Amino acid sequence: MTNPDYGRAFPLWREAAAEAWYRYTHHPFVERLGDGSLSREAFLHYLRQDYVFLIHFSRAWALAAAKAETMEELQAAAATVHALVHVEMPLHINTCAAEGISQGELESTLERTENLAYTRFVLEAGYSGDFLDLMAALAPCVLGYGEIGLRLAASAGVTPWRGWIDTYAGAEFQDACRTVGALIDHSLTRRLGEVWEQQPRWIRLCARFETATQLEIGFWDMGLQPHV
Amino acid sequence: MTNPDYGRAFPLWREAAAEAWYRYTHHPFVERLGDGSLSREAFLHYLRQDYVFLIHFSRAWALAAAKAETMEELQAAAATVHALVHVEMPLHINTCAAEGISQGELESTLERTENLAYTRFVLEAGYSGDFLDLMAALAPCVLGYGEIGLRLAASAGVTPWRGWIDTYAGAEFQDACRTVGALIDHSLTRRLGEVWEQQPRWIRLCARFETATQLEIGFWDMGLQPHV
Amino acid sequence: MTNPDYGRAFPLWREAAAEAWYRYTHHPFVERLGDGSLSREAFLHYLRQDYVFLIHFSRAWALAAAKAETMEELQAAAATVHALVHVEMPLHINTCAAEGISQGELESTLERTENLAYTRFVLEAGYSGDFLDLMAALAPCVLGYGEIGLRLAASAGVTPWRGWIDTYAGAEFQDACRTVGALIDHSLTRRLGEVWEQQPRWIRLCARFETATQLEIGFWDMGLQPHV
Amino acid sequence: MTNPDYGRAFPLWREAAAEAWYRYTHHPFVERLGDGSLSREAFLHYLRQDYVFLIHFSRAWALAAAKAETMEELQAAAATVHALVHVEMPLHINTCAAEGISQGELESTLERTENLAYTRFVLEAGYSGDFLDLMAALAPCVLGYGEIGLRLAASAGVTPWRGWIDTYAGAEFQDACRTVGALIDHSLTRRLGEVWEQQPRWIRLCARFETATQLEIGFWDMGLQPHV
Repeated sequence: MTNPDYGRAFPLWREAAAEAWYRYTHHPFVERLGDGSLSREAFLHYLRQDYVFLIHFSRAWALAAAKAETMEELQAAAATVHALVHVEMPLHINTCAAEGISQGELESTLERTENLAYTRFVLEAGYSGDFLDLMAALAPCVLGYGEIGLRLAASAGVTPWRGWIDTYAGAEFQDACRTVGALIDHSLTRRLGEVWEQQPRWIRLCARFETATQLEIGFWDMGLQPHV
Repeated sequence: MTNPDYGRAFPLWREAAAEAWYRYTHHPFVERLGDGSLSREAFLHYLRQDYVFLIHFSRAWALAAAKAETMEELQAAAATVHALVHVEMPLHINTCAAEGISQGELESTLERTENLAYTRFVLEAGYSGDFLDLMAALAPCVLGYGEIGLRLAASAGVTPWRGWIDTYAGAEFQDACRTVGALIDHSLTRRLGEVWEQQPRWIRLCARFETATQLEIGFWDMGLQPHV
Repeated sequence: MTNPDYGRAFPLWREAAAEAWYRYTHHPFVERLGDGSLSREAFLHYLRQDYVFLIHFSRAWALAAAKAETMEELQAAAATVHALVHVEMPLHINTCAAEGISQGELESTLERTENLAYTRFVLEAGYSGDFLDLMAALAPCVLGYGEIGLRLAASAGVTPWRGWIDTYAGAEFQDACRTVGALIDHSLTRRLGEVWEQQPRWIRLCARFETATQLEIGFWDMGLQPHV
Repeated sequence: MTNPDYGRAFPLWREAAAEAWYRYTHHPFVERLGDGSLSREAFLHYLRQDYVFLIHFSRAWALAAAKAETMEELQAAAATVHALVHVEMPLHINTCAAEGISQGELESTLERTENLAYTRFVLEAGYSGDFLDLMAALAPCVLGYGEIGLRLAASAGVTPWRGWIDTYAGAEFQDACRTVGALIDHSLTRRLGEVWEQQPRWIRLCARFETATQLEIGFWDMGLQPHV
């Protein structure tokens, strides 16, 4: 299967973090979403933690808007915040409601350490660094889910988690991935020039991307340990 | 004329900064918008600076979203960012275009010190402080424009700047003012309890509000000095 | 044994997080430091991770200085940064050198997730919140090490890790604990008034303190898993 | 007179902001410090505002420590904070005391807008950007005072403000300037490579430096308007 086309930086970052990227995108949690063997309990546990994750993830995109240097960056980041907060999160709440988890229950979810580690890493990268640090730390989640969604949509059998797959393989989310990919490329060019992959910062942005990918693996690991 | 009702905190802040508040909301620039004596040159100068202001103001609201502690705060701040970036700013660009100022010209506006002082004060208050510091620093612009708009709409004569007045006196902006007022009240109660005006932080939030009001005065002053 | 006196807020925070606090301060890693059963390998692993930790911990104290509201807060936070960066860290480097770990080796330490989770939580608490959020997140490390040091100094048998114990039980570090405790109390009073434990923010500061304590437990857990 | 040697970036930044740099370093306030014609009232007014300035300037250097990426950057920034907070500010307080201004009076100084504009610009540059943005915004004050001090020391006649001149022309402050210059050069090379002046970010760092220089001019302007 061909890798999705989310711009120029993404395949380079993915390549630089190849081993971790594979473990993230082919994690047992992912495979079980695809073959239907993921238990409902594990899925609900994941949904609950993902609610907490989405709040902090939205905050990180809001921070990107605060750190934007151009009108285009500001609008792109603000549009992502809006999509997350006013579309994705209400959708998430509805999905949870359909599974019998009330919003009150979602809000009282105890944040797991693997979850906390990931979002605080992203936010701190953004606060201490600049817009690019945020992009590198935010990319694995957005673009990885896009890639996972596409792959599972093409390969998955009968699975109760088809809805999840369709969301991330769907045109709307894939569009969002391309938009984010373009934003990343533009923001790199603006700050590091056309050959950004030869700049000293590039290697550190690759490291940011890889650490975020490792933390995605930790998030899936947590997803398979509902009772801890 | 009765003061507009934007919640509980606003009249207290306004009262605590009464002298500055009056000088801000009854500034010669404002009066000339109302009586039509403001020169076109001064108005266009103001529009250009206001474009730069709106970018940083949007960033400050995005920072508020990043610093939100509840889903409600996150959604309210994100909605304001969205309104600013995807409604207000395009509207602003159109208004300027109608006056013969291209977007390229807007983007090359040289930021005046009075403008810079104001937005950096707001952003720094937010970065160094918390959500409440941002609310107190953001309030004078949003709620002051609402109050000015209402007053001028009721009192203004024939003026070429009726469009400006109608924007801020209009239902949409007045709604936004009430929403922001409610957000401020809720965020105060959440952090300082029901009698927040008796907390030690209250006095410092009043000072934040007053400094931002002083910087609004500086912004109007600048509006009357187009050539400097 | 009597608990150490580090001011008024500390015993309240400790009490509110009692179960986690006990697991942190009486963690098997701590007990093995005291009875001498901790392996050299585990201790060196801990030292290496602690080097990375100290860098981020120093940055967090520097952030506290940036967020200080008074000259006293600024001086106290700056003094702590200075002690960490120009006394504690060189000492740490010497201790490691004595154990055969070069500074180059220290600098190439791969940061473990448990370590990252903790420091990014503290830094993000500080960036997103205010000075108090930082104090609550920083307290468990400083004051907990002081308490552990004192207890082990009084109870420990023959142990190769006596140097570690003496450092934290020593007059200099105990002084630092009392200074930090006083800074916490003053900064609470300044912002929340005399009866800060009845303010709505108090409960959230307690939660900050408890989460940081949980992350200390995670750090000790990691200390016992040198090979992972 | 030869320009002082504070490293490689400084002369390039100075050159790029040549006109503003001249107006800052040869401002009437500066000339009157040198020829002794500055009134005592103006000098005391300046000292009072400078006290407020130094607090925020120290906070900005603390933010640089928080944003450091290497041990060297952390130590250099922390050393500057320490020098400012525990040497410079006590010295400043003593100078003021000698002129009959108590510390209490200093602390109640009403911050002037020109002062606020400058420090909030620096702090916001640091919060929204990265370590380099801070360096470019901090450089004009540190290195400009070094340059002014040297020039006045060589050229000034009999002046009551000889103490001020000697402080900034003195070996200690000149050492600090060279240290800061070296820190700037290293941090540029680390992030932008050896030929950082050909990177797209360079032009924006030059703009940061120039804006900060403009705000220094505003600060001197304010110094000559004691009564406003």
